[in-house]
Amino acid sequence: MKKPSTPKGTRDFLPDTMRKRNFLFGTIRKVFEKYGYEAIETPAMEHLETLTGKYGEEGDRLIFKMLARGEKLNKALADGNQSHLAEEALRYDLTVPFARFVVQHQNDLAFPFRRYQIQPVWRADRPQKGRYREFFQCDADVVGTDSLRCEVEYVQIFDEVFSALNLPVEIRINNRKLLSALAQHVGEAERIVPLTVAIDKLDKLPMDKVLEDLGEQGFSNQAREALRTVLESARSAKDSVDLLDRVEAMLGGIPYGAKGIEELRYIFSKVEKLGLQSAKLRFDLSLARGLNYYTGAIFEVLPLTEAQVGSICGGGRYDDLTGIFGMPGMSGVGISFGADRIYDLLEATNGFPERETEGTALLFVNFGEAEADYCHVLLKKLRDEGIKAELYPDAAKMKKQMKYANDKRIPYVALAGENEMNKNAVTLKNMETGAQEEVKAGDLAARITN
Amino acid sequence: MKKPSTPKGTRDFLPDTMRKRNFLFGTIRKVFEKYGYEAIETPAMEHLETLTGKYGEEGDRLIFKMLARGEKLNKALADGNQSHLAEEALRYDLTVPFARFVVQHQNDLAFPFRRYQIQPVWRADRPQKGRYREFFQCDADVVGTDSLRCEVEYVQIFDEVFSALNLPVEIRINNRKLLSALAQHVGEAERIVPLTVAIDKLDKLPMDKVLEDLGEQGFSNQAREALRTVLESARSAKDSVDLLDRVEAMLGGIPYGAKGIEELRYIFSKVEKLGLQSAKLRFDLSLARGLNYYTGAIFEVLPLTEAQVGSICGGGRYDDLTGIFGMPGMSGVGISFGADRIYDLLEATNGFPERETEGTALLFVNFGEAEADYCHVLLKKLRDEGIKAELYPDAAKMKKQMKYANDKRIPYVALAGENEMNKNAVTLKNMETGAQEEVKAGDLAARITN
Repeated sequence: MKKPSTPKGTRDFLPDTMRKRNFLFGTIRKVFEKYGYEAIETPAMEHLETLTGKYGEEGDRLIFKMLARGEKLNKALADGNQSHLAEEALRYDLTVPFARFVVQHQNDLAFPFRRYQIQPVWRADRPQKGRYREFFQCDADVVGTDSLRCEVEYVQIFDEVFSALNLPVEIRINNRKLLSALAQHVGEAERIVPLTVAIDKLDKLPMDKVLEDLGEQGFSNQAREALRTVLESARSAKDSVDLLDRVEAMLGGIPYGAKGIEELRYIFSKVEKLGLQSAKLRFDLSLARGLNYYTGAIFEVLPLTEAQVGSICGGGRYDDLTGIFGMPGMSGVGISFGADRIYDLLEATNGFPERETEGTALLFVNFGEAEADYCHVLLKKLRDEGIKAELYPDAAKMKKQMKYANDKRIPYVALAGENEMNKNAVTLKNMETGAQEEVKAGDLAARITN
Repeated sequence: MKKPSTPKGTRDFLPDTMRKRNFLFGTIRKVFEKYGYEAIETPAMEHLETLTGKYGEEGDRLIFKMLARGEKLNKALADGNQSHLAEEALRYDLTVPFARFVVQHQNDLAFPFRRYQIQPVWRADRPQKGRYREFFQCDADVVGTDSLRCEVEYVQIFDEVFSALNLPVEIRINNRKLLSALAQHVGEAERIVPLTVAIDKLDKLPMDKVLEDLGEQGFSNQAREALRTVLESARSAKDSVDLLDRVEAMLGGIPYGAKGIEELRYIFSKVEKLGLQSAKLRFDLSLARGLNYYTGAIFEVLPLTEAQVGSICGGGRYDDLTGIFGMPGMSGVGISFGADRIYDLLEATNGFPERETEGTALLFVNFGEAEADYCHVLLKKLRDEGIKAELYPDAAKMKKQMKYANDKRIPYVALAGENEMNKNAVTLKNMETGAQEEVKAGDLAARITN
């Protein structure tokens, strides 16, 4: 028999990992809710037609499709039309299902509608370190408003979450309108997409290489030199305020440029007034995130840790979330937390709380039927007070029971033999220090919760 | 364009439903954890071979399979072998994945291993009222022990959960060993499966009809009359203690019968000693749950409400969870909560807490830029104190903002114009009573949390 396993690129979550994941998701969830965001969930499956054509050719290939069943399968095989082999597919992200959701339930939602959604998505990608075929996305969006206060609050949300997680981060912000102005400034307004893709690579490739690549795509020398001038001036800015001034001087004459600068100045001024706990906010003109979908603010969060990891959050404003489903003009702004990367970072920095404070607080050792009966009554009283506790189910060897307590990292063990039973007490052992003491039955709850 | 929708038998969960579902799952989760159960999760997909052959022919047909991709799909279509069209499938329940999990991670688990798991499962069933193609299971199991204290604790867990949910229930218990003894008693030891299936129908069909059906399956007159005698005696028992005595008198001479009675007496005596809050425990000899999988205790929970609904929980003891994956002899006992049915019951009995106590507590009305700035600072202070609050993002018409507060059932609204700003205060409106009062900025948090 083959050793049982999970499919390629998928994982089981064992209790210790679950506890940490729940801590991470719980932290994010709590902040989202404080900002008025409400949870929704959508089904794992969508109609195939809801998903196809939304993620580009490459994305379409990575969608997990459900094999047709029964008569439909037979018909599909008989007619030889591959597109009839599947009618449903697993969601590929949370954005398209959310757009479908907003259109479908528009009459039941209070707009501006703020929702968060923490669910797995599936992509038939080649699995590699830190990348999975089933992974969780953790998104918040507000739709039905173009108020920049939403952007301001996302900066606050990033700050609150990463302050709570004790993870120092830099929040990078740009504005898609400045990229449009830049394209116009260099005389390539029509080719904003390749320009954006190229600029987005500036954090990995040298400027010369990026400009060379643009040359190969037909960008003129003049365009490339104009681009170099702007980007090099931007690079030498000493801070975000200086950068805002420099970009305004270069692109402020173009309407899109003026608007982009105005929006960024607004966000910076409100954030400064409200203050941040630990995160840094930085304007980064080369931040593009490759998504043509964005029309205003673009966000990215990077950890300020030694480990070289990429961005751990992204987001931005869009003008038209739901047009693809026949409901145009739904503006909004959203962010997404990269749960797996943040998990790995917290693991590397010992950022998770101790297991001992969360799991079973006390194990009663089982010495036999009469002793177990005595303990079971005490156990019930502890549970009635909300304490997580267990009685080892069998009168197994002491060593085995202690190993169980150790493996499960239970901080206290209670032992009760005839002596303790006569005194209506237990011997309480602290598993960390090894110290033992006699504790009256009535004092047990207080003793282990202190 | 077609109106967007979810696939047949699947649902979106809107904020209000999510809140209720989280309350339900949170209640169950809290009790599980108090009893030492830890959360795990398994991937949505399993290898197809992990699932096939585990749910019978009908079950196999209802498994959602993933369509093969790329070269594999082309090959499968070319060779015409339908079984090559899929390599992975969506889980059909939580039990088989759990069995696979235990075998795969046996060296990383502390035995006896107690886990709970709350995840969706998928079945390509014909959807009907209250039955879905994607639905949540909510299971707890302990494996690696045959201690009957586990059964005792499941009775306590049922009682705790339904007491917390304010739902009166009857916990029915039987023992598979008694069904074996009964089959032997009537001379049909070999045909325990059809016998069990027939007995399981006694809550829906009259005795005569059930016996007639058995006759058609070749059960002799003598066997059927012996069966009638036992079942009628069982039916006329005045309570569980009386029934234990009657069954012992009839089946106690058969080793299986004696053992089954002994186990039930043990469970009843411990439960009586520990006490239950609100649930009733009842021995029901005709409880079979059709699952041949069970070897000891069998559980079922029925609501004692006016609405005629079937069982809302089930469970039982098994001897061999993991044998199918090459690890024999792993005994355990598990239970499962029928989340959708319990949800519907709570909805019908108004059993969910009020939304007002859980969502956004306060909405600041937006009168314009200066007023919004003033409110945004107050808002930040409230959030710093952990209060869920919002500022309406746009300076929209008052009526629209109030409608938003109403739709989202936000209990308080704060208004601040020049007058309030000068006094460092807000006008606080109670949305339920309509009462308004001036509240100092510094008193706002205390005012709305009382």
